[in-house]
Amino acid sequence: MPRFRLTLEYDGSNFAGWQRQAGQPSVQQALEDAVQAMSGQNVDTIVAGRTDAGVHARGQVVHFDLDRDRDRDFTPDRLRDGLNFYLREARVAVLDAAIVDAEFSARLSATARHYLYRILNRRPPPGLEAGRVWHVPVALDADAMHRAAQALVGHHDFTSFRSSECQAKSPLRTMDAVAVTRSGEEVHVTVRSRSFLHNQVRIMVGTLKLVGEGRWSADDVRVALEKCERSAAGPTAPPDGLYLMRVDY
Amino acid sequence: MPRFRLTLEYDGSNFAGWQRQAGQPSVQQALEDAVQAMSGQNVDTIVAGRTDAGVHARGQVVHFDLDRDRDRDFTPDRLRDGLNFYLREARVAVLDAAIVDAEFSARLSATARHYLYRILNRRPPPGLEAGRVWHVPVALDADAMHRAAQALVGHHDFTSFRSSECQAKSPLRTMDAVAVTRSGEEVHVTVRSRSFLHNQVRIMVGTLKLVGEGRWSADDVRVALEKCERSAAGPTAPPDGLYLMRVDY
Repeated sequence: MPRFRLTLEYDGSNFAGWQRQAGQPSVQQALEDAVQAMSGQNVDTIVAGRTDAGVHARGQVVHFDLDRDRDRDFTPDRLRDGLNFYLREARVAVLDAAIVDAEFSARLSATARHYLYRILNRRPPPGLEAGRVWHVPVALDADAMHRAAQALVGHHDFTSFRSSECQAKSPLRTMDAVAVTRSGEEVHVTVRSRSFLHNQVRIMVGTLKLVGEGRWSADDVRVALEKCERSAAGPTAPPDGLYLMRVDY
Repeated sequence: MPRFRLTLEYDGSNFAGWQRQAGQPSVQQALEDAVQAMSGQNVDTIVAGRTDAGVHARGQVVHFDLDRDRDRDFTPDRLRDGLNFYLREARVAVLDAAIVDAEFSARLSATARHYLYRILNRRPPPGLEAGRVWHVPVALDADAMHRAAQALVGHHDFTSFRSSECQAKSPLRTMDAVAVTRSGEEVHVTVRSRSFLHNQVRIMVGTLKLVGEGRWSADDVRVALEKCERSAAGPTAPPDGLYLMRVDY
Protein backbone atom coordinates (compact mmCIF):
# COMPACT_ATOMS: atom_id res chain seq x y z
CA MET A 1 0.00 0.00 0.00
CA PRO A 2 2.23 2.82 -1.22
CA ARG A 3 1.80 6.35 0.08
CA PHE A 4 1.61 9.13 -2.51
CA ARG A 5 2.44 12.79 -2.04
CA LEU A 6 0.89 15.32 -4.43
CA THR A 7 1.63 19.00 -4.94
CA LEU A 8 -1.46 20.95 -5.98
CA GLU A 9 -2.33 24.29 -7.53
CA TYR A 10 -5.90 25.61 -7.39
CA ASP A 11 -8.11 28.65 -7.61
CA GLY A 12 -9.84 28.84 -4.24
CA SER A 13 -12.68 31.03 -5.48
CA ASN A 14 -14.30 27.94 -7.00
CA PHE A 15 -14.49 26.16 -3.63
CA ALA A 16 -15.96 26.44 -0.15
CA GLY A 17 -12.46 25.61 1.07
CA TRP A 18 -10.19 22.59 1.22
CA GLN A 19 -12.27 20.51 3.59
CA ARG A 20 -15.09 18.22 2.49
CA GLN A 21 -18.51 19.62 3.48
CA ALA A 22 -21.94 18.25 2.63
CA GLY A 23 -23.51 20.10 -0.30
CA GLN A 24 -20.54 22.39 -0.93
CA PRO A 25 -17.76 22.11 -3.50
CA SER A 26 -14.41 21.45 -1.83
CA VAL A 27 -10.93 20.79 -3.16
CA GLN A 28 -10.74 17.65 -1.03
CA GLN A 29 -13.92 16.27 -2.59
CA ALA A 30 -12.74 17.12 -6.11
CA LEU A 31 -9.42 15.37 -5.50
CA GLU A 32 -10.89 12.31 -3.78
CA ASP A 33 -13.47 11.96 -6.56
CA ALA A 34 -10.66 12.07 -9.13
CA VAL A 35 -8.69 9.38 -7.27
CA GLN A 36 -11.86 7.28 -7.10
CA ALA A 37 -12.53 7.75 -10.82
CA MET A 38 -8.98 6.75 -11.70
CA SER A 39 -8.35 3.92 -9.24
CA GLY A 40 -11.75 2.76 -8.05
CA GLN A 41 -10.51 3.33 -4.49
CA ASN A 42 -11.86 5.59 -1.77
CA VAL A 43 -8.99 7.42 -0.11
CA ASP A 44 -8.72 9.78 2.83
CA THR A 45 -6.45 12.65 1.95
CA ILE A 46 -4.35 14.45 4.55
CA VAL A 47 -3.39 17.99 3.65
CA ALA A 48 -0.65 20.42 4.72
CA GLY A 49 -2.88 23.49 4.88
CA ARG A 50 -6.65 23.42 5.24
CA THR A 51 -7.26 26.51 3.14
CA ASP A 52 -10.51 28.42 3.73
CA ALA A 53 -13.07 29.33 1.07
CA GLY A 54 -11.52 31.64 -1.51
CA VAL A 55 -7.90 30.96 -0.50
CA HIS A 56 -5.67 29.82 -3.37
CA ALA A 57 -2.76 27.40 -3.58
CA ARG A 58 0.32 27.26 -5.75
CA GLY A 59 2.02 24.54 -3.72
CA GLN A 60 -0.47 22.72 -1.49
CA VAL A 61 0.73 19.26 -0.40
CA VAL A 62 -1.44 16.23 0.30
CA HIS A 63 -0.85 12.55 0.94
CA PHE A 64 -2.94 9.37 0.74
CA ASP A 65 -2.47 5.62 0.47
CA LEU A 66 -3.45 3.54 -2.55
CA ASP A 67 -3.90 -0.21 -2.47
CA ARG A 68 -1.11 -1.76 -4.51
CA ASP A 69 -2.96 -4.90 -5.61
CA ARG A 70 -5.33 -3.05 -7.83
CA ASP A 71 -3.04 -0.42 -9.24
CA ARG A 72 0.46 -1.77 -9.38
CA ASP A 73 1.09 0.27 -12.50
CA PHE A 74 0.29 3.64 -10.89
CA THR A 75 3.64 5.26 -11.38
CA PRO A 76 3.76 8.80 -9.97
CA ASP A 77 3.75 10.32 -13.46
CA ARG A 78 0.73 8.28 -14.54
CA LEU A 79 -1.07 9.26 -11.36
CA ARG A 80 -0.32 12.96 -11.93
CA ASP A 81 -1.48 12.90 -15.56
CA GLY A 82 -4.54 10.77 -14.84
CA LEU A 83 -5.68 12.95 -11.95
CA ASN A 84 -5.17 16.07 -14.08
CA PHE A 85 -7.45 14.52 -16.68
CA TYR A 86 -10.24 13.97 -14.14
CA LEU A 87 -9.65 17.35 -12.45
CA ARG A 88 -9.67 19.45 -15.64
CA GLU A 89 -13.16 20.89 -15.02
CA ALA A 90 -12.45 21.61 -11.34
CA ARG A 91 -9.46 23.88 -12.02
CA VAL A 92 -7.26 21.88 -9.68
CA ALA A 93 -3.87 20.91 -11.11
CA VAL A 94 -1.53 18.22 -9.79
CA LEU A 95 1.93 19.73 -10.28
CA ASP A 96 3.87 16.77 -8.93
CA ALA A 97 3.32 13.24 -7.62
CA ALA A 98 5.78 11.07 -5.74
CA ILE A 99 5.88 7.87 -3.68
CA VAL A 100 6.92 8.58 -0.09
CA ASP A 101 7.66 6.60 3.08
CA ALA A 102 4.75 5.33 5.12
CA GLU A 103 5.92 7.68 7.90
CA PHE A 104 5.47 10.78 5.76
CA SER A 105 2.56 13.04 6.68
CA ALA A 106 1.70 16.07 4.55
CA ARG A 107 0.41 17.70 7.72
CA LEU A 108 2.72 16.55 10.53
CA SER A 109 6.03 16.28 8.67
CA ALA A 110 5.95 19.87 7.42
CA THR A 111 8.82 22.02 8.68
CA ALA A 112 7.66 25.28 7.09
CA ARG A 113 4.63 26.69 5.31
CA HIS A 114 5.04 29.70 3.00
CA TYR A 115 2.14 32.07 2.34
CA LEU A 116 1.87 35.06 0.03
CA TYR A 117 -0.79 37.75 0.42
CA ARG A 118 -1.39 40.03 -2.59
CA ILE A 119 -2.89 43.49 -2.12
CA LEU A 120 -3.82 45.45 -5.26
CA ASN A 121 -3.06 48.96 -4.09
CA ARG A 122 -4.51 51.42 -6.56
CA ARG A 123 -7.69 53.42 -6.84
CA PRO A 124 -9.35 51.48 -9.70
CA PRO A 125 -10.64 48.03 -8.79
CA PRO A 126 -9.18 44.87 -10.37
CA GLY A 127 -10.42 44.07 -13.88
CA LEU A 128 -8.31 40.97 -14.41
CA GLU A 129 -7.41 39.94 -10.86
CA ALA A 130 -10.82 40.06 -9.16
CA GLY A 131 -10.95 37.25 -6.59
CA ARG A 132 -7.15 36.94 -6.60
CA VAL A 133 -6.13 40.10 -4.77
CA TRP A 134 -7.42 42.32 -1.97
CA HIS A 135 -8.25 45.69 -3.47
CA VAL A 136 -7.10 48.52 -1.17
CA PRO A 137 -7.63 51.89 -2.88
CA VAL A 138 -5.82 54.04 -0.28
CA ALA A 139 -2.05 54.32 -0.87
CA LEU A 140 -0.17 52.01 1.51
CA ASP A 141 3.30 52.62 2.95
CA ALA A 142 4.85 49.19 2.37
CA ASP A 143 8.07 50.12 4.18
CA ALA A 144 6.16 51.11 7.32
CA MET A 145 4.19 47.85 7.09
CA HIS A 146 7.43 45.88 6.82
CA ARG A 147 8.97 47.56 9.85
CA ALA A 148 5.82 47.01 11.94
CA ALA A 149 5.64 43.39 10.80
CA GLN A 150 8.96 42.61 12.46
CA ALA A 151 7.18 42.71 15.87
CA LEU A 152 5.39 39.53 14.77
CA VAL A 153 8.58 37.59 13.97
CA GLY A 154 9.66 35.04 16.57
CA HIS A 155 7.93 32.92 19.21
CA HIS A 156 4.74 34.55 20.55
CA ASP A 157 1.28 33.94 21.92
CA PHE A 158 -0.80 34.84 18.84
CA THR A 159 -4.21 34.87 20.55
CA SER A 160 -4.82 38.36 19.11
CA PHE A 161 -4.17 36.98 15.62
CA ARG A 162 -6.36 33.87 15.62
CA SER A 163 -9.98 33.40 14.65
CA SER A 164 -12.37 32.99 17.59
CA GLU A 165 -13.20 29.64 15.95
CA CYS A 166 -9.59 28.46 15.96
CA GLN A 167 -9.37 24.96 17.38
CA ALA A 168 -5.60 24.74 17.91
CA LYS A 169 -4.76 23.74 21.49
CA SER A 170 -1.98 26.29 21.88
CA PRO A 171 -1.90 29.89 20.63
CA LEU A 172 1.91 29.78 20.61
CA ARG A 173 3.55 29.93 17.18
CA THR A 174 6.95 30.90 15.79
CA MET A 175 6.99 33.19 12.77
CA ASP A 176 10.28 32.58 10.95
CA ALA A 177 9.88 35.59 8.66
CA VAL A 178 7.34 38.27 7.77
CA ALA A 179 8.15 40.63 4.90
CA VAL A 180 6.21 43.37 3.12
CA THR A 181 7.37 44.55 -0.30
CA ARG A 182 5.93 46.67 -3.06
CA SER A 183 5.83 45.32 -6.63
CA GLY A 184 4.36 47.98 -8.88
CA GLU A 185 0.67 48.39 -8.05
CA GLU A 186 0.78 45.44 -5.64
CA VAL A 187 1.90 45.12 -2.03
CA HIS A 188 3.02 41.59 -1.13
CA VAL A 189 3.09 40.17 2.37
CA THR A 190 5.09 36.93 2.66
CA VAL A 191 5.04 34.83 5.82
CA ARG A 192 6.86 31.65 6.79
CA SER A 193 6.25 29.47 9.84
CA ARG A 194 6.13 25.79 10.75
CA SER A 195 2.38 26.20 11.32
CA PHE A 196 -0.29 28.86 11.57
CA LEU A 197 -3.42 29.45 13.62
CA HIS A 198 -6.80 29.78 11.93
CA ASN A 199 -6.98 33.04 9.94
CA GLN A 200 -3.58 34.08 11.34
CA VAL A 201 -2.11 35.37 8.06
CA ARG A 202 -5.32 37.21 7.16
CA ILE A 203 -5.49 38.92 10.58
CA MET A 204 -1.81 39.84 10.35
CA VAL A 205 -2.44 41.39 6.92
CA GLY A 206 -5.60 43.17 8.09
CA THR A 207 -3.59 44.64 10.96
CA LEU A 208 -0.56 45.63 8.87
CA LYS A 209 -2.90 47.38 6.42
CA LEU A 210 -3.82 49.78 9.28
CA VAL A 211 -0.12 50.60 9.54
CA GLY A 212 0.17 51.04 5.77
CA GLU A 213 -2.68 53.57 5.85
CA GLY A 214 -0.98 55.48 8.65
CA ARG A 215 -3.77 54.74 11.13
CA TRP A 216 -1.62 52.49 13.33
CA SER A 217 2.02 52.76 14.39
CA ALA A 218 4.47 49.86 14.61
CA ASP A 219 4.03 50.12 18.36
CA ASP A 220 0.27 49.57 18.06
CA VAL A 221 1.02 46.22 16.42
CA ARG A 222 3.32 45.22 19.27
CA VAL A 223 0.70 46.23 21.85
CA ALA A 224 -2.02 44.29 19.98
CA LEU A 225 0.17 41.18 20.08
CA GLU A 226 0.87 41.59 23.80
CA LYS A 227 -2.81 42.01 24.70
CA CYS A 228 -3.57 38.41 23.71
CA GLU A 229 -7.17 39.04 22.73
CA ARG A 230 -8.65 38.92 19.25
CA SER A 231 -10.31 42.34 19.49
CA ALA A 232 -6.92 43.99 20.04
CA ALA A 233 -5.73 43.26 16.47
CA GLY A 234 -7.08 44.56 13.16
CA PRO A 235 -9.83 43.03 11.01
CA THR A 236 -9.43 39.81 9.05
CA ALA A 237 -8.32 40.49 5.47
CA PRO A 238 -10.46 38.79 2.79
CA PRO A 239 -9.41 35.35 1.51
CA ASP A 240 -9.01 36.55 -2.11
CA GLY A 241 -5.39 37.67 -1.78
CA LEU A 242 -4.04 34.63 0.09
CA TYR A 243 -1.92 31.92 -1.56
CA LEU A 244 -0.36 28.83 0.03
CA MET A 245 2.86 28.94 -1.98
CA ARG A 246 5.02 26.10 -0.68
CA VAL A 247 5.44 23.56 2.10
CA ASP A 248 8.88 22.41 3.23
CA TYR A 249 9.61 18.98 4.70
CA MET B 1 -19.49 68.20 -25.85
CA PRO B 2 -16.18 67.05 -24.38
CA ARG B 3 -14.47 63.92 -25.63
CA PHE B 4 -13.31 61.44 -23.00
CA ARG B 5 -10.54 58.86 -23.30
CA LEU B 6 -10.63 55.84 -21.00
CA THR B 7 -8.01 53.17 -20.33
CA LEU B 8 -9.59 49.80 -19.51
CA GLU B 9 -8.58 46.50 -17.95
CA TYR B 10 -10.79 43.42 -18.35
CA ASP B 11 -10.97 39.67 -18.23
CA GLY B 12 -12.03 38.64 -21.73
CA SER B 13 -13.26 35.22 -20.67
CA ASN B 14 -16.43 36.85 -19.37
CA PHE B 15 -17.30 38.32 -22.77
CA ALA B 16 -18.09 37.36 -26.36
CA GLY B 17 -15.55 40.02 -27.32
CA TRP B 18 -15.32 43.80 -27.35
CA GLN B 19 -18.00 44.44 -29.92
CA ARG B 20 -21.68 44.75 -29.10
CA GLN B 21 -23.67 41.71 -30.34
CA ALA B 22 -27.34 40.94 -29.80
CA GLY B 23 -27.87 38.46 -26.98
CA GLN B 24 -24.19 38.18 -26.05
CA PRO B 25 -22.24 39.90 -23.27
CA SER B 26 -19.70 42.34 -24.69
CA VAL B 27 -17.27 44.78 -23.10
CA GLN B 28 -18.69 47.56 -25.27
CA GLN B 29 -22.22 46.90 -24.02
CA ALA B 30 -21.07 46.77 -20.39
CA LEU B 31 -19.23 50.06 -20.76
CA GLU B 32 -21.99 51.84 -22.68
CA ASP B 33 -24.56 50.62 -20.12
CA ALA B 34 -22.39 52.03 -17.32
CA VAL B 35 -22.08 55.41 -19.09
CA GLN B 36 -25.85 55.40 -19.56
CA ALA B 37 -26.46 54.54 -15.90
CA MET B 38 -24.15 57.32 -14.77
CA SER B 39 -25.00 60.09 -17.23
CA GLY B 40 -28.36 59.20 -18.72
CA GLN B 41 -26.73 59.48 -22.14
CA ASN B 42 -26.37 56.93 -24.92
CA VAL B 43 -22.86 57.05 -26.30
CA ASP B 44 -21.08 55.32 -29.14
CA THR B 45 -17.68 54.17 -28.00
CA ILE B 46 -14.72 53.89 -30.38
CA VAL B 47 -12.03 51.44 -29.33
CA ALA B 48 -8.33 50.97 -30.11
CA GLY B 49 -8.46 47.18 -30.37
CA ARG B 50 -11.61 45.15 -31.07
CA THR B 51 -10.56 42.19 -28.93
CA ASP B 52 -12.15 38.83 -29.73
CA ALA B 53 -13.99 36.58 -27.27
CA GLY B 54 -11.63 35.45 -24.52
CA VAL B 55 -8.93 38.05 -25.25
CA HIS B 56 -7.94 40.16 -22.22
CA ALA B 57 -6.89 43.78 -21.84
CA ARG B 58 -4.58 45.54 -19.44
CA GLY B 59 -4.53 48.80 -21.38
CA GLN B 60 -7.41 48.97 -23.85
CA VAL B 61 -8.23 52.56 -24.92
CA VAL B 62 -11.66 53.92 -25.87
CA HIS B 63 -13.17 57.32 -26.56
CA PHE B 64 -16.65 58.79 -26.60
CA ASP B 65 -18.38 62.16 -26.38
CA LEU B 66 -20.60 63.27 -23.51
CA ASP B 67 -23.06 66.13 -23.73
CA ARG B 68 -21.80 68.91 -21.48
CA ASP B 69 -25.18 70.44 -20.62
CA ARG B 70 -26.27 67.51 -18.56
CA ASP B 71 -23.00 66.59 -16.94
CA ARG B 72 -20.92 69.68 -16.50
CA ASP B 73 -19.49 68.25 -13.31
CA PHE B 74 -18.14 65.06 -14.90
CA THR B 75 -14.49 65.55 -14.10
CA PRO B 76 -12.32 62.70 -15.41
CA ASP B 77 -11.76 61.35 -11.89
CA ARG B 78 -15.49 61.34 -11.11
CA LEU B 79 -16.18 59.62 -14.41
CA ARG B 80 -13.54 56.94 -13.69
CA ASP B 81 -14.84 56.26 -10.17
CA GLY B 82 -18.49 56.35 -11.18
CA LEU B 83 -18.00 53.98 -14.09
CA ASN B 84 -16.03 51.62 -11.87
CA PHE B 85 -18.99 51.58 -9.49
CA TYR B 86 -21.39 50.55 -12.26
CA LEU B 87 -18.90 48.11 -13.81
CA ARG B 88 -18.02 46.26 -10.60
CA GLU B 89 -20.05 43.15 -11.47
CA ALA B 90 -18.76 43.04 -15.06
CA ARG B 91 -15.08 42.81 -14.07
CA VAL B 92 -14.17 45.73 -16.27
CA ALA B 93 -12.02 48.38 -14.60
CA VAL B 94 -11.46 51.95 -15.78
CA LEU B 95 -7.80 52.59 -14.97
CA ASP B 96 -7.72 56.16 -16.23
CA ALA B 97 -10.03 58.83 -17.66
CA ALA B 98 -9.03 62.05 -19.40
CA ILE B 99 -10.55 64.82 -21.52
CA VAL B 100 -9.00 64.90 -24.98
CA ASP B 101 -9.23 67.02 -28.13
CA ALA B 102 -12.19 66.53 -30.44
CA GLU B 103 -9.66 65.29 -33.05
CA PHE B 104 -8.51 62.41 -30.87
CA SER B 105 -9.59 58.93 -31.98
CA ALA B 106 -8.80 55.88 -29.85
CA ARG B 107 -8.69 53.91 -33.08
CA LEU B 108 -7.18 56.19 -35.71
CA SER B 109 -4.75 58.22 -33.59
CA ALA B 110 -2.93 55.14 -32.26
CA THR B 111 0.74 54.96 -33.24
CA ALA B 112 1.45 51.57 -31.66
CA ARG B 113 -0.43 48.68 -30.11
CA HIS B 114 1.38 46.34 -27.71
CA TYR B 115 0.22 42.75 -27.22
CA LEU B 116 1.48 40.04 -24.87
CA TYR B 117 0.79 36.35 -25.42
CA ARG B 118 1.31 34.04 -22.41
CA ILE B 119 2.02 30.34 -22.92
CA LEU B 120 2.08 28.13 -19.82
CA ASN B 121 4.75 25.64 -20.85
CA ARG B 122 4.71 22.73 -18.42
CA ARG B 123 3.16 19.30 -18.36
CA PRO B 124 0.46 19.92 -15.69
CA PRO B 125 -2.46 22.12 -16.79
CA PRO B 126 -3.11 25.50 -15.17
CA GLY B 127 -4.86 25.40 -11.79
CA LEU B 128 -4.88 29.14 -11.18
CA GLU B 129 -4.42 30.58 -14.67
CA ALA B 130 -7.03 28.64 -16.63
CA GLY B 131 -8.48 30.97 -19.30
CA ARG B 132 -5.49 33.33 -18.96
CA VAL B 133 -2.76 31.31 -20.62
CA TRP B 134 -2.36 28.81 -23.47
CA HIS B 135 -1.31 25.51 -21.96
CA VAL B 136 1.39 23.85 -24.08
CA PRO B 137 2.68 20.70 -22.34
CA VAL B 138 5.59 19.98 -24.72
CA ALA B 139 8.81 21.81 -23.81
CA LEU B 140 9.29 24.84 -26.09
CA ASP B 141 12.64 26.28 -27.22
CA ALA B 142 11.97 29.98 -26.62
CA ASP B 143 15.30 31.04 -28.12
CA ALA B 144 14.53 29.24 -31.38
CA MET B 145 11.08 30.87 -31.41
CA HIS B 146 12.65 34.28 -30.92
CA ARG B 147 15.11 33.81 -33.78
CA ALA B 148 12.36 32.58 -36.11
CA ALA B 149 10.11 35.47 -35.09
CA GLN B 150 12.56 37.99 -36.49
CA ALA B 151 11.43 37.01 -40.00
CA LEU B 152 8.09 38.64 -39.15
CA VAL B 153 9.59 42.00 -38.14
CA GLY B 154 9.29 44.79 -40.71
CA HIS B 155 6.89 45.67 -43.53
CA HIS B 156 5.27 42.59 -45.10
CA ASP B 157 2.18 41.21 -46.76
CA PHE B 158 0.69 39.23 -43.83
CA THR B 159 -1.98 37.37 -45.82
CA SER B 160 -0.67 34.08 -44.36
CA PHE B 161 -1.18 35.50 -40.87
CA ARG B 162 -4.71 36.87 -41.11
CA SER B 163 -8.06 35.24 -40.47
CA SER B 164 -10.02 34.33 -43.57
CA GLU B 165 -12.71 36.62 -42.10
CA CYS B 166 -10.36 39.61 -41.84
CA GLN B 167 -12.01 42.70 -43.32
CA ALA B 168 -8.96 44.95 -43.56
CA LYS B 169 -8.50 46.36 -47.07
CA SER B 170 -4.77 45.77 -47.16
CA PRO B 171 -2.80 42.79 -45.81
CA LEU B 172 0.30 44.99 -45.49
CA ARG B 173 1.45 45.68 -41.94
CA THR B 174 4.68 46.72 -40.25
CA MET B 175 5.74 44.77 -37.18
CA ASP B 176 7.99 47.03 -35.13
CA ALA B 177 9.13 44.26 -32.80
CA VAL B 178 8.44 40.60 -32.06
CA ALA B 179 10.18 39.01 -29.07
CA VAL B 180 9.94 35.62 -27.39
CA THR B 181 11.27 35.18 -23.87
CA ARG B 182 11.02 32.55 -21.17
CA SER B 183 9.90 33.53 -17.67
CA GLY B 184 9.99 30.43 -15.48
CA GLU B 185 7.21 28.09 -16.60
CA GLU B 186 5.86 30.66 -19.07
CA VAL B 187 6.91 31.63 -22.57
CA HIS B 188 5.96 35.21 -23.47
CA VAL B 189 5.52 36.54 -26.99
CA THR B 190 5.40 40.34 -27.19
CA VAL B 191 4.47 42.14 -30.38
CA ARG B 192 4.29 45.82 -31.28
CA SER B 193 2.83 47.38 -34.42
CA ARG B 194 0.76 50.39 -35.42
CA SER B 195 -2.07 48.00 -36.29
CA PHE B 196 -2.79 44.32 -36.71
CA LEU B 197 -4.87 42.13 -39.00
CA HIS B 198 -7.64 39.96 -37.56
CA ASN B 199 -6.14 37.08 -35.52
CA GLN B 200 -2.65 38.13 -36.60
CA VAL B 201 -0.99 37.79 -33.20
CA ARG B 202 -2.70 34.46 -32.52
CA ILE B 203 -1.62 33.02 -35.90
CA MET B 204 1.93 34.30 -35.34
CA VAL B 205 1.98 32.57 -31.93
CA GLY B 206 0.43 29.37 -33.31
CA THR B 207 3.17 29.33 -35.98
CA LEU B 208 6.04 30.12 -33.62
CA LYS B 209 4.87 27.31 -31.35
CA LEU B 210 5.67 24.88 -34.19
CA VAL B 211 9.22 26.24 -34.13
CA GLY B 212 9.40 25.94 -30.34
CA GLU B 213 8.44 22.27 -30.58
CA GLY B 214 11.14 21.68 -33.19
CA ARG B 215 8.62 20.82 -35.91
CA TRP B 216 9.34 23.94 -37.97
CA SER B 217 12.58 25.77 -38.72
CA ALA B 218 13.04 29.53 -38.82
CA ASP B 219 13.13 29.16 -42.59
CA ASP B 220 9.69 27.53 -42.61
CA VAL B 221 8.31 30.71 -41.00
CA ARG B 222 9.91 32.87 -43.66
CA VAL B 223 8.50 30.65 -46.42
CA ALA B 224 5.03 30.72 -44.85
CA LEU B 225 5.13 34.52 -44.84
CA GLU B 226 6.22 34.67 -48.48
CA LYS B 227 3.50 32.29 -49.66
CA CYS B 228 0.79 34.83 -48.84
CA GLU B 229 -1.93 32.28 -48.14
CA ARG B 230 -3.52 31.49 -44.80
CA SER B 231 -2.98 27.74 -45.08
CA ALA B 232 0.79 28.25 -45.31
CA ALA B 233 1.08 29.44 -41.68
CA GLY B 234 0.40 27.53 -38.45
CA PRO B 235 -2.89 27.21 -36.57
CA THR B 236 -4.51 30.08 -34.67
CA ALA B 237 -3.51 30.03 -30.99
CA PRO B 238 -6.45 30.19 -28.55
CA PRO B 239 -7.59 33.60 -27.26
CA ASP B 240 -6.88 32.75 -23.60
CA GLY B 241 -3.23 33.83 -23.59
CA LEU B 242 -3.65 37.14 -25.42
CA TYR B 243 -3.52 40.54 -23.68
CA LEU B 244 -3.80 44.01 -25.20
CA MET B 245 -1.23 45.65 -22.93
CA ARG B 246 -0.93 49.24 -24.13
CA VAL B 247 -1.74 51.65 -26.93
CA ASP B 248 0.55 54.54 -27.78
CA TYR B 249 -0.61 57.85 -29.28
